[in-house]
Amino acid sequence: MPQPADAKDLRTLETPALILDRLKMNDNIARMRSHLAQLGVAFRPHVKTSKSIDVVRRTIGAGTGPVTVSTLKEAEYFFGYGFTDILYAVGITPNKFAHVFDLCARGVALTVILDSREMAEALAAHAQGRAARPEVMIEIDCDGHRSGVQPGSGELLAIAQRLAAGGLTLKGVITHAGNSYSCKSTEDIAAMARQERDAAVGCARILREQGYSCPEVSVGSTPTAYFATDLTGVTEVRAGVFVFGDLVMNGLGVVAPQDIAVSVLACVIGHQKEKGWTIVDAGWMAMSRDRGTSRQRVDQGYGAVCDVSGAILEDIIMIDANQEHGVIAHRSRDPEKTPYFPAGTLLRILPNHACATCAQHDRYHVVAGDGSAIDDVWPRFQGW
Amino acid sequence: MPQPADAKDLRTLETPALILDRLKMNDNIARMRSHLAQLGVAFRPHVKTSKSIDVVRRTIGAGTGPVTVSTLKEAEYFFGYGFTDILYAVGITPNKFAHVFDLCARGVALTVILDSREMAEALAAHAQGRAARPEVMIEIDCDGHRSGVQPGSGELLAIAQRLAAGGLTLKGVITHAGNSYSCKSTEDIAAMARQERDAAVGCARILREQGYSCPEVSVGSTPTAYFATDLTGVTEVRAGVFVFGDLVMNGLGVVAPQDIAVSVLACVIGHQKEKGWTIVDAGWMAMSRDRGTSRQRVDQGYGAVCDVSGAILEDIIMIDANQEHGVIAHRSRDPEKTPYFPAGTLLRILPNHACATCAQHDRYHVVAGDGSAIDDVWPRFQGW
Repeated sequence: MPQPADAKDLRTLETPALILDRLKMNDNIARMRSHLAQLGVAFRPHVKTSKSIDVVRRTIGAGTGPVTVSTLKEAEYFFGYGFTDILYAVGITPNKFAHVFDLCARGVALTVILDSREMAEALAAHAQGRAARPEVMIEIDCDGHRSGVQPGSGELLAIAQRLAAGGLTLKGVITHAGNSYSCKSTEDIAAMARQERDAAVGCARILREQGYSCPEVSVGSTPTAYFATDLTGVTEVRAGVFVFGDLVMNGLGVVAPQDIAVSVLACVIGHQKEKGWTIVDAGWMAMSRDRGTSRQRVDQGYGAVCDVSGAILEDIIMIDANQEHGVIAHRSRDPEKTPYFPAGTLLRILPNHACATCAQHDRYHVVAGDGSAIDDVWPRFQGW
Repeated sequence: MPQPADAKDLRTLETPALILDRLKMNDNIARMRSHLAQLGVAFRPHVKTSKSIDVVRRTIGAGTGPVTVSTLKEAEYFFGYGFTDILYAVGITPNKFAHVFDLCARGVALTVILDSREMAEALAAHAQGRAARPEVMIEIDCDGHRSGVQPGSGELLAIAQRLAAGGLTLKGVITHAGNSYSCKSTEDIAAMARQERDAAVGCARILREQGYSCPEVSVGSTPTAYFATDLTGVTEVRAGVFVFGDLVMNGLGVVAPQDIAVSVLACVIGHQKEKGWTIVDAGWMAMSRDRGTSRQRVDQGYGAVCDVSGAILEDIIMIDANQEHGVIAHRSRDPEKTPYFPAGTLLRILPNHACATCAQHDRYHVVAGDGSAIDDVWPRFQGW
């Protein structure tokens, strides 16, 4: 439902609502771009975090550029804004072949990824007789967290052979150190960045030694991107959540809490005073059910609480969430330590995981700094 | 992005996609309606689970009827389809007063809820000079799980007094035994149903003894609605998730697994064979991050796996989820016990919490029984 058409101030919004501080976002973007420029590596931002042309244009700098997507809907959307160099970084499935080839026929330089002979053969079979085809990257499992060929496995060359036999272009190798989200120190993240690079570069070397062209070596996650110090042999880095930051990234030492650019505006419904609970109108529907910080040193519940200007209220968190209700309290649960927020008070809640929280909303209400003025409204999309 | 326009069969859908078996849904609806009819109590279904006119029309029987909503967007949507008797069952906040009064002025018989003198006074102040007003129910905390006035507290009469002084109509009392989701046996749920009824009926009695009219006594949650045996004094029951059922309801003994009407269609991307992992293209974006069964006797991970016809594959669950990836394995994690699903295999995943999973999707692909034909596509909406 549209917010009041003339909502130019946070205080006039209906809650819950997603707030984006564009100054913080710009700083996060500048920091990542500068870091990758120093490492001398190209950047292919993952747009799954924002799913917003307004955010991605500011990430790219200007115009269009290479992007990473997690769904074909993202590919369609960004193609609609002129983006043509698109990496679809989730293993392709046969029921998406028709859509993929259609995107290629319409002018997208689309790259798909896979990690088995089975899928390489299926894709090659579908490609027969079709001129406009995707390029292919082989996914490498650098840390055991999900998909990908094991670096030492014979499957790597077997896939390359099947692609070549089917007349498909092997564009390169791709890996993602998803386990970096579980690291316990920044030293661990730096080690994970080396492991991620070594797995991808090593697989590229094996392919090239066997005569396969493997021009691209693509790695990345926000933590490993930030803590990588040497990306020799890597041709591009992917990262997504860096653009906003979140409490999980804060727990990893990647961003400071004051760098987190997105929050959910919520309004106080009422209280259970004996328990020290403040009830707000943002529950798990607005925050998501993500509890990523529950595995970290500091568990932030469903989010860390700020005042309406975005100033963090030390140790005040959302301890529980129902569909449209959040329970705010001191992290100790001590009722004496919870400040009293009168009914109607506006609060802003920092998310555990920006990708998950933003996915619950269809627009960003854009602010700049600690004022309550809304500069702009940027739409975002959901689903597949 | 639209699915292929001519998708008439699950096997032609792009995945992930939300599937609804309308025969199972119809059975769930008939069972709840029959049970409440036997108890002689009116039904005000909660539409937050489906957010779909197609589902709600089938729930109501025909035409329109009383509904419960969790957002003003739901109120707007159902009013657009002719529903006028709407209970907004999340405590009202001042930044929604303008919208609420506007709905009333446009012809909605809207009821709002609150649990403090503070909010009653704020609402009364806003109502001054406005003819079209919401009616008000006082929320009662029957089980300590969230909002509401404590049953024995003086706040109850203080709120009623403030409403009367402000010229607002007290429609009744409302409570929700949310703790029924944590019950360990159906006997516990039946006891919780009595507790829920007693709290609401008791508060209504106190109000009436003091001369306040309190025509409505509204209670409900899917578990307590199903296991209530005597609702004397209650005038209406609310329930939402019953319409679809889910694994949390199954863990509570409320529905059998084969009664769960919604599932997420997913396609096998690949494998980590040594670990017994099958990777599918439905992750937490498609399933939600809800892990409601993690607190139950049987932890179903991110969902229980069925074949494409909806037949449950015993002990095969989604053990982990990333944004667009799910990891399927035997619940024992024993690689020997995981069946081999070739790349491209379609599977259906039953959700922990139907409200959370459906909220990730913008439409239901409707099937009837175990065939793969898609009867219909029903839109649903998201957000606020």
